[in-house]
Amino acid sequence: MSATTLTRDAAVTDVAPLRPVVGGGTLVPLVDGTRVSYANLDVAASAPALQAVADRVTQVLPLYASVHRGAGYLSQVSTALYETARRTIGAFVGAREDDLTLITRNTTDSLNLLAGCVPAQPDGEPGRVLVLDVEHHANLLPWQRGTDATVLTGGSTVAETLAQIREELADAAAGRPFALLALTGASNVTGESLPVGEIVAIAHEFGARVLLDGAQLVPHRRISLESTGVDYLAFSGHKTYAPFGAGALVGRRDWLDAGTPYLAGGGAVRRVRVAGTDWHEGPARHEAGSPNVIGAVALAAACEELAALDPADVVAHENALRRRLVSGLEAIDRVEVVRVWADAVDPVGVVTFTVTGYDPGLVAAYLSAEHGIGVRDGRFCAHPLLGRLGFDAGAVRASVGVGTAGEEVERLIAAVGRLVAEGPQAGYDVVDGLWVVTDDPRPVPEGSGLAGLLSTAALGFDEDFGCLPDEV
Amino acid sequence: MSATTLTRDAAVTDVAPLRPVVGGGTLVPLVDGTRVSYANLDVAASAPALQAVADRVTQVLPLYASVHRGAGYLSQVSTALYETARRTIGAFVGAREDDLTLITRNTTDSLNLLAGCVPAQPDGEPGRVLVLDVEHHANLLPWQRGTDATVLTGGSTVAETLAQIREELADAAAGRPFALLALTGASNVTGESLPVGEIVAIAHEFGARVLLDGAQLVPHRRISLESTGVDYLAFSGHKTYAPFGAGALVGRRDWLDAGTPYLAGGGAVRRVRVAGTDWHEGPARHEAGSPNVIGAVALAAACEELAALDPADVVAHENALRRRLVSGLEAIDRVEVVRVWADAVDPVGVVTFTVTGYDPGLVAAYLSAEHGIGVRDGRFCAHPLLGRLGFDAGAVRASVGVGTAGEEVERLIAAVGRLVAEGPQAGYDVVDGLWVVTDDPRPVPEGSGLAGLLSTAALGFDEDFGCLPDEV
Repeated sequence: MSATTLTRDAAVTDVAPLRPVVGGGTLVPLVDGTRVSYANLDVAASAPALQAVADRVTQVLPLYASVHRGAGYLSQVSTALYETARRTIGAFVGAREDDLTLITRNTTDSLNLLAGCVPAQPDGEPGRVLVLDVEHHANLLPWQRGTDATVLTGGSTVAETLAQIREELADAAAGRPFALLALTGASNVTGESLPVGEIVAIAHEFGARVLLDGAQLVPHRRISLESTGVDYLAFSGHKTYAPFGAGALVGRRDWLDAGTPYLAGGGAVRRVRVAGTDWHEGPARHEAGSPNVIGAVALAAACEELAALDPADVVAHENALRRRLVSGLEAIDRVEVVRVWADAVDPVGVVTFTVTGYDPGLVAAYLSAEHGIGVRDGRFCAHPLLGRLGFDAGAVRASVGVGTAGEEVERLIAAVGRLVAEGPQAGYDVVDGLWVVTDDPRPVPEGSGLAGLLSTAALGFDEDFGCLPDEV
Repeated sequence: MSATTLTRDAAVTDVAPLRPVVGGGTLVPLVDGTRVSYANLDVAASAPALQAVADRVTQVLPLYASVHRGAGYLSQVSTALYETARRTIGAFVGAREDDLTLITRNTTDSLNLLAGCVPAQPDGEPGRVLVLDVEHHANLLPWQRGTDATVLTGGSTVAETLAQIREELADAAAGRPFALLALTGASNVTGESLPVGEIVAIAHEFGARVLLDGAQLVPHRRISLESTGVDYLAFSGHKTYAPFGAGALVGRRDWLDAGTPYLAGGGAVRRVRVAGTDWHEGPARHEAGSPNVIGAVALAAACEELAALDPADVVAHENALRRRLVSGLEAIDRVEVVRVWADAVDPVGVVTFTVTGYDPGLVAAYLSAEHGIGVRDGRFCAHPLLGRLGFDAGAVRASVGVGTAGEEVERLIAAVGRLVAEGPQAGYDVVDGLWVVTDDPRPVPEGSGLAGLLSTAALGFDEDFGCLPDEV
């Protein structure tokens, strides 16, 4: 069954994952005492490791030793593994010859790092950065703190939003021009995006560089810095099937070589005297302390595995799942799917929805407890956008990727349908602001060493560990 | 054979590792075409994973899912795994009930984080921090940049250095008192330390808190915040047999709850409006972005494995290896062992030495190429100390831990003896500032996918990737 031949409404039960992931077949308990294969529809938050990534980690662990300044054979091997991983990661996103590829912790880390490198204005004021209100906090807060950030309220269409961006950049160009336009590569709420080619053309016309927050883009679509002209790209290993603590920032060298390292420490400096410091250029400047070699190797292995897929197959697989998710959910009474731009094209596999009458946290807890489905609830660290769109009480997000099977999507649609038709079967309470199953009978996984589960689904206005909504 | 009954000069050939590490038996090629088991005597830089740590990672990887805001069963499991790991890590270092345990990237990251949390002086000037010149750069640079740091040149004895610290703290107390004394728990150059009880007593007498850089201490000795009164402790997973990208900062909550997060992003904030931000308290404040769950679980597994050892056995094992290393090296003509304090007691298993007439980088390259031994050469990111002690041209460091066998120590001693007696057998050149074997015949590991090794042993004054010496 070819995914591309599916009609809008056809079930996708037979669509198989494109690549195996670790834990893809993990059985999880339901409140009725049965067990079911876990449907991980929260890959937009953290994706499981690709099997190839786990295998690579197992392979290199016996070769692991200190890098860069250790002289042993395995130190030379580990240094080569680390620097080869850096090149693989850069190549995967089409790094230009003079671009730097920095190994960071995650997208948040990458963007904080770049925020410290945006050049100041000629009069010494912090550099200006333009961001939209559609962004994840990771692409809002670093600019608000580290630079002179302007947050633009986007329009309801792509065309309108592009016009607004152009106007804002043009207005500034005559006086205090923007140094950077920092934009999501794909919304973590809706999977939608602005057309990258047009964005780059507009920004460069007015002398601004473009940073793409690739956290939700890189796991889903091939992107090339060289062919798009994007100046900087940030992304995360844990969303790219390599959850070993490493992410990346790739892009133009000059700002990175001149900017202030935001981690001070060993390796970042050329010379240290008691009185002062002379910082390295190149990756060492921003990678103080011992690097996460295993994390970098894991991320590179994920890049290689994704690069080996035909991009058209990835898009076809994901589009089939996404279209079915949207049409299946919208066919259910009281369900609304969130959209930012009416004319957005080619969104990635991230779908956010609400069920009128049910708190998003309850929906999420129900999907887990009664159907073995993992989703995310809340405002997705994108409070300004959710507020503007009228979803102040949060929503539910389902996301798919190369490891997702059509059966998981069908299970979600059926489960939401049943919720609306019959209501939940188990009892649910809010304890300390989190939705829990009343007298939850589900055991912890055998051998996990855990004393219990930690509930995570929050009551609308009380996201205790994460991102609380605005006070109203 | 009991390690504690060894005389100073007895060979330790029969001393076995206390715990198995991954890659402990990895065979590496020598320049003569033979292969030998790798002697990893650079564990002070990065330690291999304990087998128990690797096993735990393999066990939890199928359970990995998004934490904190994912509602699925595996998200609840992963959140519980992460928060349980946090508690295990804190408990391992005797965290007080109200202490916070923050998961960071490594010690460098932990110290940069704390540097942003040192309270300002009453008049708004940055808080004062006292550091010694014996520190690793990671415990120098963050204070020099983020706070008002005073770097004290230490004395040649522990007693003298303690008196200097007391005098400095006392002098300041009347005017602008120090907020913090930031001190190494064990020198990364010599393994020596100042007595922690006396340090805490002196600092607290003058109203200063104590940060212990535990990077070289925690893998070697049990330390308890509660019983010592140390206020903050930073350490690294990659030196604690858990090289998966996570470290920790443990200590008093008030500064951490009030301090500015140095990572801005999702999870760190309670509320985000377009105009401003209200930061979380607790760990979330400083752990923006998705946390490194696997890294935290790995570090916790290492803590559990080390906690299961009898501390006396660890000390006896390490002391046997260290004493033999020192006495064996000092018995060789032209070899000098570096010491900071003549009266230091109970140093950990880190020994730094020079061989007159041989550049440290050449010694390191020789030990690797002709004997399969991994050591470190250079100035160990501790330039001020090396300079004061007269080792401006660098030195060679050998370090041991729970995974080290006595045979590795004996091999090092014999190899250095042979170098002094006969010189190196292979040819060595300096290429781009790094020592390499002339026409190095050693292959890369099978299946590693590498095109070649990356040399890392630097010529005295040209440490390109790492920490260059001062210009003289």
